[in-house]
Amino acid sequence: MNTIFFKNKPQIIATATICGPKEAEGNLGKYIDEKLADDYYGEKSFELAERKMLTRVISRAIEKSNVPLSEINAIVAGDLLNQIISASFSAREFESGFLGVYNACSTMTESMLLACALIDGGYFKNAVCATASHFATAERQYRYPLEQGTTRPAQSQWTVTGAGANVISLKGKGVSVLSATVGRVIDYGVTDANNMGAAMAPAAAHTLLDFFHDSNKRASDYDMILTGDLGALGSRMLKELLLKAGVDLKNHLDCGELIYNLNETEYQGGSGAGCSAVVFNSYIYERMLKGEYKKILFMATGALLSTTSTQQGESIPGIAHLIELESDYA
Amino acid sequence: MNTIFFKNKPQIIATATICGPKEAEGNLGKYIDEKLADDYYGEKSFELAERKMLTRVISRAIEKSNVPLSEINAIVAGDLLNQIISASFSAREFESGFLGVYNACSTMTESMLLACALIDGGYFKNAVCATASHFATAERQYRYPLEQGTTRPAQSQWTVTGAGANVISLKGKGVSVLSATVGRVIDYGVTDANNMGAAMAPAAAHTLLDFFHDSNKRASDYDMILTGDLGALGSRMLKELLLKAGVDLKNHLDCGELIYNLNETEYQGGSGAGCSAVVFNSYIYERMLKGEYKKILFMATGALLSTTSTQQGESIPGIAHLIELESDYA
Repeated sequence: MNTIFFKNKPQIIATATICGPKEAEGNLGKYIDEKLADDYYGEKSFELAERKMLTRVISRAIEKSNVPLSEINAIVAGDLLNQIISASFSAREFESGFLGVYNACSTMTESMLLACALIDGGYFKNAVCATASHFATAERQYRYPLEQGTTRPAQSQWTVTGAGANVISLKGKGVSVLSATVGRVIDYGVTDANNMGAAMAPAAAHTLLDFFHDSNKRASDYDMILTGDLGALGSRMLKELLLKAGVDLKNHLDCGELIYNLNETEYQGGSGAGCSAVVFNSYIYERMLKGEYKKILFMATGALLSTTSTQQGESIPGIAHLIELESDYA
Repeated sequence: MNTIFFKNKPQIIATATICGPKEAEGNLGKYIDEKLADDYYGEKSFELAERKMLTRVISRAIEKSNVPLSEINAIVAGDLLNQIISASFSAREFESGFLGVYNACSTMTESMLLACALIDGGYFKNAVCATASHFATAERQYRYPLEQGTTRPAQSQWTVTGAGANVISLKGKGVSVLSATVGRVIDYGVTDANNMGAAMAPAAAHTLLDFFHDSNKRASDYDMILTGDLGALGSRMLKELLLKAGVDLKNHLDCGELIYNLNETEYQGGSGAGCSAVVFNSYIYERMLKGEYKKILFMATGALLSTTSTQQGESIPGIAHLIELESDYA
C-alpha cells in the first residue's frame, strides 16, 4: 500500500505563480500572477533570478492566504539546482521551519504530500509548498550554457522559467487533498538525458496503477488526470503503458503540453520543477475554485538524473508522486 | 512553535552502518557493522561506492528489523551529491516508495522527523531513514579532486566515508522518538566553504533554543545533547552562543569530534551527511539500547551551500533539525 488517505481533508487555501516572458506568451499566461519582463528579473545571474522567483511566490502565497507569517510552520520546498540552493536561500528569508525536498520535477507533489500529512496528522497548522525552475540555469547545469548555442534534439523539452507555491491548511475553503500516493523509483533503462518524458512515463504509470489498486478508484472517476511534464512523447508512452494494463486514459492532460503555444523550439513541451508548479497553481487551481473541475489526480513526474550519473553512463530512473484533489465548490 | 510532539512514540527498531578504512580505525570503529577494505568498495568510481554503501545499509537495516520488505512503506533518504543521486539510485533497488530529502548534513534528522510524523500519524507502518557521504566524492564535488593534491586549511573538517540507516516503526521496542523540532535557515554571513562548523553552529543554537522554548525542557533533562558535525571549532561556537542565551551546555558531544582519533589531517573532526548517520546509528543507538543513555537530543547540522553559491560569493546558511530520543530500556 503506497497510498495515504487523509482524514481531515487538508485544504489548498492559496496559490501564487510567476513565470518568464516565454511562458507569459503561452496558453496559460493570463492565469499566471506575475510575469518577468526578462529572464534576469533584475538580478545579475540566472540563479539569483530563479531564487527571487521562488522567494516571491512563497511570500505572495502567504499574503493571499491571510495566514500570519508566524503561523506558517514550515516551508517544504526544493528545486533542480545542485544542493537545492534556490529553496534553501529562499527559506532563509522566512522565520518558518524549512524541510528541503528533492524528487526532481516531482518535487511539487512530493512537498504537497508531506505537508498534507504533517497538517492532517495535527503536527502543523499551515505549510507552504513551493518549487521553481529556470530555463537558463537548468541548461547550464544539466546540458550546455546557452552562450554555447548548442542545437537541441527533437525529443527535448523546454525547462519552464517559473515558480509556484501554495499554502496548505486545515482551515478554510478551496481545494481539498483527499489522498496521496508515494511514488517508487522506476527505471526502464532510458539513457538519453534529452528524452526525459520517456524516462518518467513508466514511473507515472506505476504510481497511477498503485493509486487505483489502493483506492479502488478508476480513471473515469476523475475530471482530469494531470501529469507534470511528460511532454507529448512521454504522454503518448504513458497512455500506451496504461492501455497494456487495461486502463484507457481518455481524460489526461500534461502540464508540459499545456503551458506553451505550439512552437518548434520547445519540441515536446515544457518541463522542469516549475512547469507543474506554475500550471497547477494558476490555471488548474483557478478552474477548481470555480467548480469547473471537481475531481483531479495530479502527478508531478521527476527524472532522477545528474550530470555525473549521465556522464558515468547510468540510465535515468523516474518517479511520480500523486495527489488526489477535490474542489470544495461543486 | 517549531516542535512536533509525537503521540504514539515511533520507535527506531533497527539500525545499520558501514564506513571506510579511515573511519574503521577511529574511536567508534568497533561499533560499526561493516568496514570497507578500500574506498572503492569494489566499484569503478567513488560515486558508485557511495551508492553501494547506502544501498547496503538500507538492506541491512531492513533485514535486522525483521520487517518484511513489502511492509516498508517508504525510504526517506538524501545525500550530498548533486540531485541526491546516491539516494535516488539506491531507492531504485527497493519496491518501497521514495521520498528524497535534502538538508545537507542535517538530512539524517530531517528524514527521521518526517518518517516519525508519517508513522505517528498512522499513514505509514514502517519507514527507512538513510543517508551517506564519501570523502572522495565530496572533495571532488565541493572543493578539488583528490588527484590534485590540494592542501587543506586548519579550519577544515574531513567528510566521513560512511552510511547509516534506521527503520522506524510503531511496533517493537528500541529507542522512542518523543518529539522533533523543525530547523530554520540561519545565516550569520560565513563565506568560507572550509569552515562549515562556523556556518552551522548558529542554526544548531537556534533549533535547541526553539526546542527548549516549545517543550519547557532544559539541557540538564538530557544525558547528552548530540550535534551532527560541528567539529571542534563549531562546537566551541555553539557553546558560546548558548552561554550568551543563558544555557550552559555541559552535556554536549559532537559526532564529528567523536568519530576519528585525534589526527592532524582532519583538523576539526568529521563532517558529511554520513558522519552523524554512522555515529548515531552505531555507537549512540547501541548505548541507548543498553540503557546507558536514557534521554538524548540529537541535532544533525547542515551547511546549505553549493559550489555555484560559493563561486557567486554567497554566504553559507545553516540548518539543524532536532530529534528527542528516549531509550525503552531504563
